[in-house]
Amino acid sequence: MSPQLPQPQQQTRRPLAYLQKAVNKQVAVRLKSEIEYRGKMSNVDPYMNVILVDAEESENGTKVANYGKVVIRGNNVLYVRIEDRL
Amino acid sequence: MSPQLPQPQQQTRRPLAYLQKAVNKQVAVRLKSEIEYRGKMSNVDPYMNVILVDAEESENGTKVANYGKVVIRGNNVLYVRIEDRL
Amino acid sequence: MSPQLPQPQQQTRRPLAYLQKAVNKQVAVRLKSEIEYRGKMSNVDPYMNVILVDAEESENGTKVANYGKVVIRGNNVLYVRIEDRL
Amino acid sequence: MSPQLPQPQQQTRRPLAYLQKAVNKQVAVRLKSEIEYRGKMSNVDPYMNVILVDAEESENGTKVANYGKVVIRGNNVLYVRIEDRL
Amino acid sequence: MSPQLPQPQQQTRRPLAYLQKAVNKQVAVRLKSEIEYRGKMSNVDPYMNVILVDAEESENGTKVANYGKVVIRGNNVLYVRIEDRL
Amino acid sequence: MSPQLPQPQQQTRRPLAYLQKAVNKQVAVRLKSEIEYRGKMSNVDPYMNVILVDAEESENGTKVANYGKVVIRGNNVLYVRIEDRL
Amino acid sequence: MSPQLPQPQQQTRRPLAYLQKAVNKQVAVRLKSEIEYRGKMSNVDPYMNVILVDAEESENGTKVANYGKVVIRGNNVLYVRIEDRL
Repeated sequence: MSPQLPQPQQQTRRPLAYLQKAVNKQVAVRLKSEIEYRGKMSNVDPYMNVILVDAEESENGTKVANYGKVVIRGNNVLYVRIEDRL
Repeated sequence: MSPQLPQPQQQTRRPLAYLQKAVNKQVAVRLKSEIEYRGKMSNVDPYMNVILVDAEESENGTKVANYGKVVIRGNNVLYVRIEDRL
Repeated sequence: MSPQLPQPQQQTRRPLAYLQKAVNKQVAVRLKSEIEYRGKMSNVDPYMNVILVDAEESENGTKVANYGKVVIRGNNVLYVRIEDRL
Repeated sequence: MSPQLPQPQQQTRRPLAYLQKAVNKQVAVRLKSEIEYRGKMSNVDPYMNVILVDAEESENGTKVANYGKVVIRGNNVLYVRIEDRL
Repeated sequence: MSPQLPQPQQQTRRPLAYLQKAVNKQVAVRLKSEIEYRGKMSNVDPYMNVILVDAEESENGTKVANYGKVVIRGNNVLYVRIEDRL
Repeated sequence: MSPQLPQPQQQTRRPLAYLQKAVNKQVAVRLKSEIEYRGKMSNVDPYMNVILVDAEESENGTKVANYGKVVIRGNNVLYVRIEDRL
Repeated sequence: MSPQLPQPQQQTRRPLAYLQKAVNKQVAVRLKSEIEYRGKMSNVDPYMNVILVDAEESENGTKVANYGKVVIRGNNVLYVRIEDRL
């Protein structure tokens, strides 16, 4: 599935390349605060700036808002959780 | 399915290029604090410095002020939400 | 009024060039804390270091001090609001 | 066990090379907050961005959630503890 | 009115060059906390590291200490106020 | 004891070279929070990322945990105290 | 006393060169928190990483500990006060 040269161990892919592979998948982006955004990660860059579409904002597990298209600035990100299969 | 070379899927545009495409659209800029600014994004740069015109400041959902022209320093930005159609 | 080459859409000027164009105008510089400085922006650089002259400091909307000449370090800036016409 | 050239003193390996050697081992990633993630470190980069699989989140020692695949942004990391033998 | 080429208006000098011109003047250095140092700025660099001599420390307007020679690390600086004429 | 070229004043060694010389010595790493880790510094790099082995974590002077091998991210470090003779 | 080339105005020395000249002098290093370390500055680098020997830690003016040799990471430094004559 990968366009790069063969890699004997797929799991040794670097974190940012791994995120790039998750483009168009469903993800959850947790921020340093207790806020979390879930949606389709329509793109991401090496700074971890993320475009989410059909995003849902939740705080402490409670859904608080829906957004069509949001660009999250990477320095606020605590982690990106990939919810779909890669 | 390869993200490199030809990009038949517009949604794989990178976050900063995506923001650039939203110039002159209506956006909401949420800061790390609970403050939010809405207005026309008259321009943006790769650091996410944003020029808003006819900006409205709100805090916890309550409108608190109106500004003609404001340049927000990018490092304060949590996300930019695009409210118009791209 | 601009010395540069013609730009079909004035509003697509980048944020830092836009600030540079506001030199010698009246501005308000809001900091990450609740403090705000208003005065003539005698100059600004790409890091958003700002020189204000005849500056007035206010906190939560109340004027607290006057300063002749002050150089604000850019990393403290939340936004620069341009109060004069450009 | 090392694929690099012989190093007379294994213990003088630099921190980031040492982490790289721990790929596919069981680790605990402690964040600046009291949160900790344990799982298999499927990869890591020099910024300490970490991919964890089968990750378990705990706060103050109490397990709070399980995640399949999570990419932690390196700037949030306090330390990485290697639990398997290298 | 062009800011480039000849500069008939001294006030268009850039912030860091402006600070450099204030060397050997009396200044007040306000930090991000409520602390302020006043003294002769014996030198300054582009990161806003500042050498103050005969420095007086005050907190919330109350003088708390005197220092002969102190080098303030620039990243702590909120602003430098120039008290002497330039 | 130094493998480098002769240096007339040993004490003028730069901080990062000094730390490098302390590899394999017993150290205490104090973090910005009140947490401290003591152990053998098996390596360190110029960003002050540190590998500690047989590490002991203490908070406000009370021992709270033991870790076999831990890699501390340098930006969390307040200081490294060298407890062995160099 | 300076080994460098003649400088017409000693006081125009830049902050980092000034600190370098204070090597082997008695200094006080104040951190962003209320903690202060005093000792002989055995070396310093341009990031303001400092080696102190025979260091004394005090908090709010009260001595709390003594350390033989400590390397303080520069980003924690608020200022370095030079207590000896240069």
